[in-house]
Amino acid sequence: MKPNFSMRLRVFNLNCWAIPYLSKHRADRVKRLADFLNLESFDLALLQEVWSEQDFQYLRQKLLPTYPSAHYFRSGIIGSGLCVFSKHPIQEFTQHVYTLNGYPYMIHHGDWFCGKAVGLLVLHLSGLVLNAYVTHLHAEYNRQKDIYLAHRVVQAWELAHFIHHTSKKADVVLLCGDLNLHPKDLGCRLLKEWTGLRDAYLETRDFKGSEEGCTMVPDNCYVNQKELQPFPCGIRIDYVLYKAVSGFYISCKTLKTTTGLDPHSGSPLSDHEALMATLCVRHSPPQEDPSSTHGAAENSPLVTVLREALTELDQAVAQARRWATCAGYVIGLGLLLLAVLCSLAAGGGVREVAILLWTPSVGLLLGAGAVYTFHMQEAKGLCKARAELQHVLGRAREAQDLGPESQPALSLGHQEGNRAEDQ
Amino acid sequence: MKPNFSMRLRVFNLNCWAIPYLSKHRADRVKRLADFLNLESFDLALLQEVWSEQDFQYLRQKLLPTYPSAHYFRSGIIGSGLCVFSKHPIQEFTQHVYTLNGYPYMIHHGDWFCGKAVGLLVLHLSGLVLNAYVTHLHAEYNRQKDIYLAHRVVQAWELAHFIHHTSKKADVVLLCGDLNLHPKDLGCRLLKEWTGLRDAYLETRDFKGSEEGCTMVPDNCYVNQKELQPFPCGIRIDYVLYKAVSGFYISCKTLKTTTGLDPHSGSPLSDHEALMATLCVRHSPPQEDPSSTHGAAENSPLVTVLREALTELDQAVAQARRWATCAGYVIGLGLLLLAVLCSLAAGGGVREVAILLWTPSVGLLLGAGAVYTFHMQEAKGLCKARAELQHVLGRAREAQDLGPESQPALSLGHQEGNRAEDQ
Repeated sequence: MKPNFSMRLRVFNLNCWAIPYLSKHRADRVKRLADFLNLESFDLALLQEVWSEQDFQYLRQKLLPTYPSAHYFRSGIIGSGLCVFSKHPIQEFTQHVYTLNGYPYMIHHGDWFCGKAVGLLVLHLSGLVLNAYVTHLHAEYNRQKDIYLAHRVVQAWELAHFIHHTSKKADVVLLCGDLNLHPKDLGCRLLKEWTGLRDAYLETRDFKGSEEGCTMVPDNCYVNQKELQPFPCGIRIDYVLYKAVSGFYISCKTLKTTTGLDPHSGSPLSDHEALMATLCVRHSPPQEDPSSTHGAAENSPLVTVLREALTELDQAVAQARRWATCAGYVIGLGLLLLAVLCSLAAGGGVREVAILLWTPSVGLLLGAGAVYTFHMQEAKGLCKARAELQHVLGRAREAQDLGPESQPALSLGHQEGNRAEDQ
Repeated sequence: MKPNFSMRLRVFNLNCWAIPYLSKHRADRVKRLADFLNLESFDLALLQEVWSEQDFQYLRQKLLPTYPSAHYFRSGIIGSGLCVFSKHPIQEFTQHVYTLNGYPYMIHHGDWFCGKAVGLLVLHLSGLVLNAYVTHLHAEYNRQKDIYLAHRVVQAWELAHFIHHTSKKADVVLLCGDLNLHPKDLGCRLLKEWTGLRDAYLETRDFKGSEEGCTMVPDNCYVNQKELQPFPCGIRIDYVLYKAVSGFYISCKTLKTTTGLDPHSGSPLSDHEALMATLCVRHSPPQEDPSSTHGAAENSPLVTVLREALTELDQAVAQARRWATCAGYVIGLGLLLLAVLCSLAAGGGVREVAILLWTPSVGLLLGAGAVYTFHMQEAKGLCKARAELQHVLGRAREAQDLGPESQPALSLGHQEGNRAEDQ
């Protein structure tokens, strides 16, 4: 590769809000999206909430001349909703389905059935290895009383962990998607601190679009205006994040968002705003990553955010165990009730009542069994993430004890440092 | 790192068969295992079927002086059963839970509840990066009519894919575990062909232990003799597999198995035999991997095994959809029955019978709904794996079209080749 190597990468990201039968004007919006993507000819288009594989197949057909490579990430019962269209050949792809993703009995929220995931594409662009990730985390339905907070924190952690372990040989890492996290939220900070990914909106000098880079804005006619009432400008929950590793440098030349309207016809493409980034990658002499100095100190951003996440998970584990214990008591009661009913039915007298009550008590027993099992599994998933966080925190502290000379090795998200540590 | 660098690595692998309440002499065997591991002082001990976290905590306490680092991989409802004990600090760990792992209604087999997984440990040994993987695939209950074959093939594929994507910067890759696959089985060939991992038993010149390296032998008193009847010497389903990347060379100096008896007291440690390997890693000038020449030809082992796996998955997808369709019909029937019963109950006459039949028909409906949902999810998981296999096969064919000069780039399991391809 030439020392003056430089490459421009145009990226599109959109949560398409394409739920069959439920999302308004879905077919029309998907058609307009295809026209727009064909017209703009991005290098990569990363989409979320394409819930129907028929919609993906339609887009694939329409986009084939401009984007010859495409992939739909299948998972869960409904699907992950994630898909990608690429102008360049996709060399490899894989995915990770998040361990925790809401509750099956919250049917009206539906996230549990989707199998939310992160998808990875590996592209080789003029000798440069690009790992592009696309994801969609669990939705936030009530910010004041967010019962999914711990699940979203674990998802953000698993996302960071997946990127960390699969990007060790990548030159450039790109993450796009709907994180359902505001920029200062715990999950977002955890993701950024652990991976070293930078936020296109905060980094670029040339931003055009919605106020404060918001990706759900009140001007969008599909948005639930009531939900956005506490946020007059809207909220920023969709991101383009990136970093370069191993002697490359990446910057965001321009970032644009739609502003509640279709870029051409005036009607919006989705209830979310699209993000369009132009990134520039060039060779750079190996240098210490500025973020690699933040790992050691006890009050460094990484250590702080790890501690905060651990506190959150401790509470969530206790909560999951409380639910499992409650369900355990209900199982006990249900068994007792069944025994009583069986003896009543056998003894005659109120036989009819006993037989009638048999159904709800068996239902109660099965339901409580399912709730018990689910929350035990939830506790196990939370404990798994907690063990990973504790390990990373332990390593950060060990490094601190070794003194400042080990500083470059302490950026746990930067594998270059890890490699240097033992050599 | 010095050019004459050389390192010896002693590895222990055992499926411990430690099922609380069910496995015979569990406490005694776990205690003897701990004594044996302490005495032998391996570099790494990788265990499967440690189903109880209490057993892990007991081992952790007893092994602490010899193996200061340990990790238990939590997953599913019961757990993955996987754990590791290491003489060297564990730098990082993560895990992947297999998408498909049997059927929830096969309660007597229980695999579905375990959350079978692959665990990864990253160790830094004298500047060398070692990725050690431990796994346990779905059991084979009936070799003649194996209803889990497709699930095990998908698990083997996901295992290979996980290793491929997470070991790109490793110098040495080690995989130990109970694959529940005979050496010539489709899943085993797929794993070896795609990752380039080599089998310690086939590679070593110094093997001591059970006949043909079997890891379940009739001499073991805990083994179900009836199941082993078709295999007089036993079966080989536990493995130590390895490869070196990026200018290192790895060989297996010695491999030992137990032979149905405890190495000291005479009573076996488990129903499986333990594997004990001494591996030697040394620097070697970069050379073409001998396995990198097998990617292109239409009849190469990789292409052949990919095609075989695709055929298997095609059948499994059809089967899963058939089950889902059947369940769909039952749902329809259940709804019809419910409607009839409701009208009978409302109309009087056979009201009592109608009310009595209400319970089983609701049960039928819910059961069929669960079966439908499960098999739709199964079909999605199978389609995901099929898409990945098709992509790899497509790339192998593209490479073939490019002619023999592209041969070094075609070993899809060897990321060195992939990198070279575009540079």
